[in-house]
Amino acid sequence: MPDRTRKHRRATRDLFLGVDGGGTKTHSVILSAEGELLAEDLSGPSNPFRTGLKNSADTIALSAARACDKIGRTTGSIVSAVTGLAGVRREDLRSEMRRLLSRELTHATLSVVTDAEIALYAVLEKRSGLVVIAGTGSIVYGRNSRGRTALAGGWGPIAGDEGGGVSIAIDALSAVARASDGRGPKTELSKLAAEYFRSKSADDLVVAIYSPHVNFTRIAGFATSVARAAARGDKTAVDILSKAGTELGDAACAVVRELGMTRSAVEVGTVGGVFRSGEIVKRALEDQLSKCVRSMSFTDALFSPAEAAARMAYEQAFAKITEKRKK
Amino acid sequence: MPDRTRKHRRATRDLFLGVDGGGTKTHSVILSAEGELLAEDLSGPSNPFRTGLKNSADTIALSAARACDKIGRTTGSIVSAVTGLAGVRREDLRSEMRRLLSRELTHATLSVVTDAEIALYAVLEKRSGLVVIAGTGSIVYGRNSRGRTALAGGWGPIAGDEGGGVSIAIDALSAVARASDGRGPKTELSKLAAEYFRSKSADDLVVAIYSPHVNFTRIAGFATSVARAAARGDKTAVDILSKAGTELGDAACAVVRELGMTRSAVEVGTVGGVFRSGEIVKRALEDQLSKCVRSMSFTDALFSPAEAAARMAYEQAFAKITEKRKK
Repeated sequence: MPDRTRKHRRATRDLFLGVDGGGTKTHSVILSAEGELLAEDLSGPSNPFRTGLKNSADTIALSAARACDKIGRTTGSIVSAVTGLAGVRREDLRSEMRRLLSRELTHATLSVVTDAEIALYAVLEKRSGLVVIAGTGSIVYGRNSRGRTALAGGWGPIAGDEGGGVSIAIDALSAVARASDGRGPKTELSKLAAEYFRSKSADDLVVAIYSPHVNFTRIAGFATSVARAAARGDKTAVDILSKAGTELGDAACAVVRELGMTRSAVEVGTVGGVFRSGEIVKRALEDQLSKCVRSMSFTDALFSPAEAAARMAYEQAFAKITEKRKK
Repeated sequence: MPDRTRKHRRATRDLFLGVDGGGTKTHSVILSAEGELLAEDLSGPSNPFRTGLKNSADTIALSAARACDKIGRTTGSIVSAVTGLAGVRREDLRSEMRRLLSRELTHATLSVVTDAEIALYAVLEKRSGLVVIAGTGSIVYGRNSRGRTALAGGWGPIAGDEGGGVSIAIDALSAVARASDGRGPKTELSKLAAEYFRSKSADDLVVAIYSPHVNFTRIAGFATSVARAAARGDKTAVDILSKAGTELGDAACAVVRELGMTRSAVEVGTVGGVFRSGEIVKRALEDQLSKCVRSMSFTDALFSPAEAAARMAYEQAFAKITEKRKK
């Protein structure tokens, strides 16, 4: 009898949770104790800047519960969890998020890190090097052989994020405005902007961009049209993408210098939609980066950021066991 | 008896209303039939992009009623009214606003025009020339001697408004981000940004800028700090303001070319907070403009945009009388 009661109270704890909490979606991954991917879930956004910390924590907990539910389990079975949160550079916000999540995932060892950290792991696991992320926003994050880390960019769509999707789209819309006013050359981007924002005129386009709130995710989507125009040889579009790559290269060099890696052969991972839209951005990044490192090699991500987070959760649990044994 | 009843129903109609409806405030001015300024009111924002058309119309009607109330009158006494609305380049939105306002100001002849149009009148009345507006946003509007008009800029804080307060502030924040990451030179703007946004660190600053929504009016306020840094000789700040002036000059030249005024002596009015914060912007504007016109002279505004709108209302009523007489 006591044995059965105990079984009811305490589920077998053998699951590892990784979460990639972004501005457009929350991706959860569950790994088994053997490192096998058991279940995934995609839910709504959990960037705390957009939704607030409390809603963000609720979304993450719900996404984790849904993933567990797919294999007939509950979050009570999670041993260890790592959450990567977009844009949360501030340590106190990460602590607060950890506290909120601990209410929901009561038994698990929890960590809350930045999205850059899980992306670095997705590309390089624990090796030294850089990850250049250019999705909606942009950030460069690196780790040297002594384990020290540094970042550049990630300042959001207003103050920075040069080379990210929003930044590319804004440059393109600015070029459309210039062409329309006669301040700049004609560009195929004008037609593509009218299509993307479903506007019939320049004035219409202004309304489409701003009403009722500026939606940066929607604006970032226009970066795909810029890549299309560039592929067809539109000079304005090519220039915008080259500039984006150069800006990402500047950010990468800032990290390289900060970490004292200028004389190293640096391994570089590229992550995010901007890199999937043609080679122009990557080539410009490479050109710029070649000015500040001895040599470099490009690497693709081994797994999704969410799976990387789950693997980090696995390692975190293992490190805890090792630590206990040492005592 | 019938005479008294009639007097009750119908107020003496001898007032002229001008409204400047902006993103931060609504300014109403009442003129007498002699052109004397009788009353003013300042109310909340009425930019329809921010508040919606219906709320915007309500705010304008309320502001007009408050101004009338100050001299013991009602809006029933208004003969003619002109409203200048920020950012409403689209004709159908202006018509809709006119319809909404006609419900409140039932007896008056109504016009809804852009903020650029009332600013042009404030500077040049009916003479030909340009007005360069650089407040929170930016726009250049001009009229040639044949009465044809053209504009450039006014694309809002994301796609354009180069040279406006938001644009200057964004360039400055981007410079702060670069300096912090080691991507750009150190600048006094870093300290000023920390003060203005009350942030203790770079990461803190990111939160201050984006939470919970991007507030462009607040961001634009940082342009004043850029002017302060420039006055003390900070090179980054000086470069940002010079670039702003050059961009405004580019927009002005686009209007000059569109209106066929390149061989004219052009009268130019400058309006908005950016021009009040030092001479750098104006000098760069002058340099750029000198490349596309034979000669130019700068003019200051004769009255506020709201009073300009009221004077336009006065002329509108007069034109109507003249028209009737002609018939």
